[in-house]
Amino acid sequence: MPIITLLTDYGTRDHYVGELKGVILTIAPAAQIVDITHDIEPFKVRQAAFVLQRVWARYPAGTIHLAVVDPGVGSDRRIILGQYAGRFVVAPDNGLVTWVHREYALEAMYVVEDRRYFLGQLSTTFHGRDIMAPVAAHLANGVQPRSFGRVTDRLEMLPIPARAEPTERGWLGCVIYVDRFGSMVTNIGEEQLQTPRGEARSWEVLVDGANIGPIRSTFCDVPSGTPLALIGGSGFLEISINQGSAVQRFAGSDAVRVEVRSKVSRV
Amino acid sequence: MPIITLLTDYGTRDHYVGELKGVILTIAPAAQIVDITHDIEPFKVRQAAFVLQRVWARYPAGTIHLAVVDPGVGSDRRIILGQYAGRFVVAPDNGLVTWVHREYALEAMYVVEDRRYFLGQLSTTFHGRDIMAPVAAHLANGVQPRSFGRVTDRLEMLPIPARAEPTERGWLGCVIYVDRFGSMVTNIGEEQLQTPRGEARSWEVLVDGANIGPIRSTFCDVPSGTPLALIGGSGFLEISINQGSAVQRFAGSDAVRVEVRSKVSRV
Amino acid sequence: MPIITLLTDYGTRDHYVGELKGVILTIAPAAQIVDITHDIEPFKVRQAAFVLQRVWARYPAGTIHLAVVDPGVGSDRRIILGQYAGRFVVAPDNGLVTWVHREYALEAMYVVEDRRYFLGQLSTTFHGRDIMAPVAAHLANGVQPRSFGRVTDRLEMLPIPARAEPTERGWLGCVIYVDRFGSMVTNIGEEQLQTPRGEARSWEVLVDGANIGPIRSTFCDVPSGTPLALIGGSGFLEISINQGSAVQRFAGSDAVRVEVRSKVSRV
Repeated sequence: MPIITLLTDYGTRDHYVGELKGVILTIAPAAQIVDITHDIEPFKVRQAAFVLQRVWARYPAGTIHLAVVDPGVGSDRRIILGQYAGRFVVAPDNGLVTWVHREYALEAMYVVEDRRYFLGQLSTTFHGRDIMAPVAAHLANGVQPRSFGRVTDRLEMLPIPARAEPTERGWLGCVIYVDRFGSMVTNIGEEQLQTPRGEARSWEVLVDGANIGPIRSTFCDVPSGTPLALIGGSGFLEISINQGSAVQRFAGSDAVRVEVRSKVSRV
Repeated sequence: MPIITLLTDYGTRDHYVGELKGVILTIAPAAQIVDITHDIEPFKVRQAAFVLQRVWARYPAGTIHLAVVDPGVGSDRRIILGQYAGRFVVAPDNGLVTWVHREYALEAMYVVEDRRYFLGQLSTTFHGRDIMAPVAAHLANGVQPRSFGRVTDRLEMLPIPARAEPTERGWLGCVIYVDRFGSMVTNIGEEQLQTPRGEARSWEVLVDGANIGPIRSTFCDVPSGTPLALIGGSGFLEISINQGSAVQRFAGSDAVRVEVRSKVSRV
Repeated sequence: MPIITLLTDYGTRDHYVGELKGVILTIAPAAQIVDITHDIEPFKVRQAAFVLQRVWARYPAGTIHLAVVDPGVGSDRRIILGQYAGRFVVAPDNGLVTWVHREYALEAMYVVEDRRYFLGQLSTTFHGRDIMAPVAAHLANGVQPRSFGRVTDRLEMLPIPARAEPTERGWLGCVIYVDRFGSMVTNIGEEQLQTPRGEARSWEVLVDGANIGPIRSTFCDVPSGTPLALIGGSGFLEISINQGSAVQRFAGSDAVRVEVRSKVSRV
C-alpha cells in the first residue's frame, strides 16, 4: 500500500487536517499517511511548490503526494493528477507542481473530473477533503490514474526564477526560499560554482553589495552571529547566519541580490 | 486494529504528546495513531469540542477519539468513555463532547474508573498520559467498553449556542468558531438558508450591521481582500475575507452579530 | 519492525522533516515513524535533551530515538549510536543524551562512521537526512549496532544542574525546563520532598523570595490566575499558574530561584 504524503496550508489548530486524514483512512484503511507540512503560509503556492520539489524523490516510487494550497478553490481552476519519476501528485492546477515539473520528467498528467471518486456531497470551499483526498485514497487503492479523467498537456506554471545569470566575474542571483532558521536559499546552484580546479573557496559572496566572504563548508567556519554563504542541503547557495537568522539581518528577502564573484579574476 | 486519534492542547514543543504516543504504543503496538491537533488553545474546551464534532464521523466506525483538554485535571471531574455513531471518545467530562452529543445519537456512556487499565503510578497533572491514553489503548486492544466503569447518564455540557434565531426577514446568529485563516464560522446552518426556490443568493448578510452582500459560492467571487459570506465546509455560514482574515477585520469574534435577511422581502 | 521517533529543531514549515521521513521510509518501508517534536527552539540542545529523557522509556524496548538538534553540523563533532535501557538513540554527540545518560544505565555506545550506511551524497549542513536518518533506518532493518562504528567511552555532556541542594530548612533549586503552558519545571525531585510523615503539605514554596504557599495536589486547589507549586507529571516540583503562565509572571526562567522550606521547622 503506497504512502500518501500531505502538504497543505491548513495549519494544525483546526479540524481540516483531521478531516482530510479521516476521509483517506475511510477509503484506504491501510494507507500510510505522512505529514510533510501543514504550515505553508496561507495561500502561498510558491512556498509549497518549492517544498514539494524538495521532498518529491526522497519518497519511494509509487508515493502519492497530496498537495493542497488552493486559493482558487471553488473557481474553475482544475484539479490535476500528475506522475513524475514514478511518484504521483494530486493538487489544484495553480502552479504547485512548477518546481517538480522543472526538475523531473513528466510521465503523465490527467484532469481530475470523474465524480465517482469524489465525496458524495461537495462543498465549494474544501476540495482538499471532498475531491483531492478521496482521489488520492482511491489511487492508493489501485485505481488506475487514467480512470480519474482525461489526459491534459496544459499546466499552470509559476514564474519561478531560472538559475542565476552569469556576470563578468561570476553569477548574479536572488532568493527563492527562506526557511524556518531564516536561511535564504538562492537560485545559484552548486554546479554553477564548480571551478576548473573544483575550488569552491575561490569565490567571494556579496549580499546586497556587502561582502560576506568565501563560500564556507559549514556553519562552524564563522563565529556565532556571523553571516556566511554555503552550499545548503538543497544543492543551492544559501545565505545563513551561524546560530542566527539571515532574513532578519538582510531585510526583505525578495529584494536581496546575491552575487558570487571569482576572487582570482580580480588579481 | 482501530485508529486512535489525538486531540489535545498539549502543543507540539514539549514531551507531552511524545509520552502519550509512547504509552499507547507500549500497550497497543499495532494501534494506528492519527494526530488531529495538539494546538487547541490551552484550556479552551469550547474550541476542542467543535473540532471533535467536525472530525467525528470522518473516521471509520470503531475509531477511538482521545480528546484531552483538561483544565480540571486532578479535581473530581470525571473521565468518560462514550460511544456515538459507532465511534468512541475517551475524554474528561468537562463539555468536550457537547457538539458530538448534539449532532449524533448517544449509544453508550461509561465513567472511566477501573484502575487496572491505568498506568501503575498516577500523577495529578497528566491524566492524559496516565489514565486516558492507556484506556484508549486497551479499548483498541479489544477490552469491552463496559469493562472500564459503570454506565452513566449524566454528562457535563457547554452552553453552546443553538442554531440562529429567526427574525422578521431572516436569521440572527453569532460566531461559534474562528479558524486559522481568520474565517468566522456562524451558527447559521445551510439548511436554514434554503428558500422556497433554493435561491441562496436572495439573501444579504450583515456583520455587525455592515452589509457584505449576498451569500457567495466561492472565495473567488469577490476581489482579494474583500469580505464575503459563504457556506463553509462545515455546513454553516462563514464570514471570510478572500485571501485575508475576517477576524482581524471584524474585531472580537465573540461580539460579532451576523444577520442574514431576505432581499426579496425588502421590496 | 521497531518504532523510530523523531525529535528535532527543524520546525514544521519547511521540507526538512518531510525529507527525513522519506529517507527513512525508502530504506525501511515498514518502519513506524512517530513525531515527538520538531519544535525544539533552534539549536537548543538543552531543551531537546530534557524532552528526550522524558519520552525515552515511554516507548517499547527496541525503539530507536532519532534526535537531531545539531548546531555543530559539518564540524568535527561526532555522531553517536547509543543504547540505554533497551532503547537506542542516534544523535550528534553534543550533549543531547545528557539527561538520558544520567537517568538510565548505559548499555552500549558507538561512533557512527561507516559510510556504507549513509546516503551516497553527503551535504555539510543536513546530516540528519544524509547520515542519521539512514543509520536509524538500517538499524530498524536489523543491522547490528556495532556495524555502524567503533565503541566509544567518551561522550559530550551538558552542564545540567544536579538535584536541588539542601538548605537549613529545605531545598534550594532552579528551573530546568519551561513548557508550552509556561509552567517551570525545577530540579527539586519528588523524592526530595518526602518528609518522615510523607507529608508533602508541610512545605512552603518561595519563588524569587515570594511565598506561593504549600505544595498543592492539583491546579484546581487555587483560583484561576493564581501561582502554585505541585509535583508535575515529570516527578519534579513545578511552578505553575492555574490556567495561566508562570514564566510570564516570574520574568526570566533562568534567574528564578525556587526554595522549598519546612513550615514545621519554623515554629
